[in-house]
Amino acid sequence: MDKGVQTRDRILERAFRLASRDGLDGLTLGTLASDLGMSKSGLFAHFASKEHLQLEVLRVAVRRFEETVVRPALEQARGLPRLDKLFRLWLDWLRDPESSGCIFVVAATESDDQESEIGRFLAERHEQLMQLLSRLVRAAVQERQLRAGVDTRQLAFEIHGIVLAAHFARRLLRDPEAVNRAIRAFERLLVDAGGAEEKHDRSF
Amino acid sequence: MDKGVQTRDRILERAFRLASRDGLDGLTLGTLASDLGMSKSGLFAHFASKEHLQLEVLRVAVRRFEETVVRPALEQARGLPRLDKLFRLWLDWLRDPESSGCIFVVAATESDDQESEIGRFLAERHEQLMQLLSRLVRAAVQERQLRAGVDTRQLAFEIHGIVLAAHFARRLLRDPEAVNRAIRAFERLLVDAGGAEEKHDRSF
Repeated sequence: MDKGVQTRDRILERAFRLASRDGLDGLTLGTLASDLGMSKSGLFAHFASKEHLQLEVLRVAVRRFEETVVRPALEQARGLPRLDKLFRLWLDWLRDPESSGCIFVVAATESDDQESEIGRFLAERHEQLMQLLSRLVRAAVQERQLRAGVDTRQLAFEIHGIVLAAHFARRLLRDPEAVNRAIRAFERLLVDAGGAEEKHDRSF
Repeated sequence: MDKGVQTRDRILERAFRLASRDGLDGLTLGTLASDLGMSKSGLFAHFASKEHLQLEVLRVAVRRFEETVVRPALEQARGLPRLDKLFRLWLDWLRDPESSGCIFVVAATESDDQESEIGRFLAERHEQLMQLLSRLVRAAVQERQLRAGVDTRQLAFEIHGIVLAAHFARRLLRDPEAVNRAIRAFERLLVDAGGAEEKHDRSF
């Protein structure tokens, strides 16, 4: 790997860590440069603007989410096992001790303006995640693990809500039960959608 | 009302509107002063610092939330009618065309640092809202509208999640179904907690 690419990766890794803790808006070229012991102009050689840096950080975050949450979930058996694994790894993602909950929740709150490139990027990625959740629910219906006629997008919406509740209960309320409550809510949701309670317990 | 108080109220009203749209961090004494046609020093006479102004804006928001969401809900009959009204008015609060969803969601994401006065204020108010939700659920249990043994705090957690999902689906995904999905999720939650489906439909 050439040295320029290595430096760029090192900057992005550090920027991702800072943004995970302080949000994207907290990420300035100045603080990042001093944090890395680089000059601001050295940073500018890699990223033309703060917005460009923020977008690249979000791309790192998406890649990280795909590697640590989505991919291991898709390695499970088709249907409920995939959905269940995705949900649990998503909660782990919130609990990453080096981050302040979910970087996407924070970024989406800071930048939900769809006129900006960052806002559009976040909206597209969130929409993709909703569609993935819908597909996993649909596969569970096809596997006869969930009831036919389940509103797949409704379930995706509610799962998203449970994760958001966990994020805010942890971050804002410091609720030590946040993750357990999220798991209970998720399990109830699946039972409602026709996932047999015992069967579900035995499978995972 | 003396003139100083009137001016202060006018500043806060405008600041509340700006913060509802752009978040608390977007609220600077500079933009607010030019928006109001005042000098920055004129503003400083009323608010010692940006943080002080932000805290006062949050107090305005809390008062507004209490007037438009909590109080009308508490005027309903005890039990489920109160909980139902609170939930529906909370969704209306998200839909206020002059705001960008819920100012508290935005502020809580910006300031979830409990070392700061704003972070503590937000955490306390969110906790109070969770406790109010728990109490309304408990009253519905006492009125035999919900099943005895329902985990009241769990329900509060899940209702919060549904509202958060609606906020993000509206703001980020521009999902026109966001509010309808939230209502469906809420109604299912109540049915799960022992609220009879028909009875519920007839009551509201």
